[in-house]
Amino acid sequence: MLVTFMESQDLSSLESIGLRYLTIRQTKMKMILKVQDQILTSLRDFLRKEGFMEILAPIIGPATDPGIRGAKQASIQYYDAPFKIMSSMILYKQMVVSSIGKIFALSPNIRLEPLETAKTARHLAEFRQIDLEMTYASYEDAMGLAEEMLVSVVKDVREKCSEELKGLGRELKAVSKPFKRMTHKETVELLRSKGHTVSYMEEIPWDAEAALSAMHQEPFFVYDYPLIARGFYDREDPNRPGILRDFDMLYPEGFGEAISGGEREHTYKGVIKRMKLTGENPEKYGWYIQMLKAGVPFSVGFGIGVERLTRWICGLKTIWEAVPFPKVPGIVSP
Amino acid sequence: MLVTFMESQDLSSLESIGLRYLTIRQTKMKMILKVQDQILTSLRDFLRKEGFMEILAPIIGPATDPGIRGAKQASIQYYDAPFKIMSSMILYKQMVVSSIGKIFALSPNIRLEPLETAKTARHLAEFRQIDLEMTYASYEDAMGLAEEMLVSVVKDVREKCSEELKGLGRELKAVSKPFKRMTHKETVELLRSKGHTVSYMEEIPWDAEAALSAMHQEPFFVYDYPLIARGFYDREDPNRPGILRDFDMLYPEGFGEAISGGEREHTYKGVIKRMKLTGENPEKYGWYIQMLKAGVPFSVGFGIGVERLTRWICGLKTIWEAVPFPKVPGIVSP
Repeated sequence: MLVTFMESQDLSSLESIGLRYLTIRQTKMKMILKVQDQILTSLRDFLRKEGFMEILAPIIGPATDPGIRGAKQASIQYYDAPFKIMSSMILYKQMVVSSIGKIFALSPNIRLEPLETAKTARHLAEFRQIDLEMTYASYEDAMGLAEEMLVSVVKDVREKCSEELKGLGRELKAVSKPFKRMTHKETVELLRSKGHTVSYMEEIPWDAEAALSAMHQEPFFVYDYPLIARGFYDREDPNRPGILRDFDMLYPEGFGEAISGGEREHTYKGVIKRMKLTGENPEKYGWYIQMLKAGVPFSVGFGIGVERLTRWICGLKTIWEAVPFPKVPGIVSP
Repeated sequence: MLVTFMESQDLSSLESIGLRYLTIRQTKMKMILKVQDQILTSLRDFLRKEGFMEILAPIIGPATDPGIRGAKQASIQYYDAPFKIMSSMILYKQMVVSSIGKIFALSPNIRLEPLETAKTARHLAEFRQIDLEMTYASYEDAMGLAEEMLVSVVKDVREKCSEELKGLGRELKAVSKPFKRMTHKETVELLRSKGHTVSYMEEIPWDAEAALSAMHQEPFFVYDYPLIARGFYDREDPNRPGILRDFDMLYPEGFGEAISGGEREHTYKGVIKRMKLTGENPEKYGWYIQMLKAGVPFSVGFGIGVERLTRWICGLKTIWEAVPFPKVPGIVSP
């Protein structure tokens, strides 16, 4: 009877989240978890082959990435000090690449997204990224690495999890490089031509991003975001003021954002200037500012969300099917 | 000048922690990070070979492991609910093994240890475990797996990081199974015979544990802890009331605790009875209690701290040398 009840639960309903201790036993969840295990293995195998070393990501710290688009950071009391749970380990990646030139980590992140994002079915308040950084490389290099990584993961999953993909009803096509590349400006023009209200000076809103994603059958890049749309760590092009040397990768078929990355603003003066623009207080970033004063190497990096990658690869209706213990914004669950 | 300053800093001093953005560039840190990368690879390779699947560990949740020996959990406000950062994912492992019989995760943990533990040089407030669980196996099986895992990791590191071990001045000897096994009672007797004040009914205090570890040249097990020394999830031996079917593995040479594990008390009635003993309120464990009512399989598991394993393998004076971004109890650092 338990088995019948459990298998009958719709994993894509918000109500099923609180019952995950039952629904995790569904055949469907087992197949998803198997694919996720393969995704983790493939990502690490690819990165090690490319010369990246795995490091232990920070969980908490006195400061974290502020550029989290409407979400709130989670605060804790760390002895006498106010600490945050990492919303992104960008600042820490800049520290460690001053020692090891190519690094990656399975980074645990918390972002308390607005309640309405529960409805997008693509936001989690708790998620993990394979986060990587490399020195003395450009954002073109990073996009090249990202597409090779995705080609490699898709190839591995198609080979090693064909039974699971079949069971999930997912026809995952092989992807091949190069992926299509559009500037933010070109993307806005395309979306406007289709009747979307999109600004040249802002992030692409979620609904337009979903529509953009749905226009495509293969992953693609949007690059050269406007300066004011992103955090102080994305580097402004010295020859094109107001334009960042950064990029997103998007999944096709309406699945939306896959990767966010860019070259880093890594100079003390540059970061202070950018912080002033967005009203950030440099004093809140104590060690980071000290580090920039001492000097860090030029670097580029990106993070790929493990749950969103799993969702796309498995072709899942919702992001909360792509993780064993989902934290959906506003919902109290295991 | 920066290079000279940086290399001259003593990584084992507490003062150096705030300057990690400089000291991370030391040749010594690079060697340690290289060994840590190999340790992570070896642990995962071994576990996958043994049929374990990697899952994504929880970061936060409404309840976590209470058995953290004097440390405090870190609290956050998760929308309208009080949440904790995981101090251990034991309860979640019991959920996922009801779906997949052999699982592991790189689990992020926060334990706000008492300030005086900074001096032990073996406590971090932020750490990671490779945490694993398997169904329908005994604690003897788990000890067997743990020793094979350690033999395998030491073999790999000796082979693949011989340059780094040499650079660190570490003569890491190969280890071979079986490791020595002592009951908690035998251990207390041994320690008492050496003049230590140790109780048959409690955890072994840190100073005695360090002395015990220093008496050994190979890793070893202490098993059958007294019931009141551990949390409600460790299973009492049905034939020997008051004795738990659990174990620790300890490193030799004074490095202390490596692994903590045991068979799980997995019945609803059994857990409620144990919670009453320690004054835990079952209502604080909402989903966990609901899950036990629905039934979970019998399982055994353990966690091995990645930083402590790195410390022992590299032969480091302090635990904060064994992690890129150390959080030492009470000290505000990156």
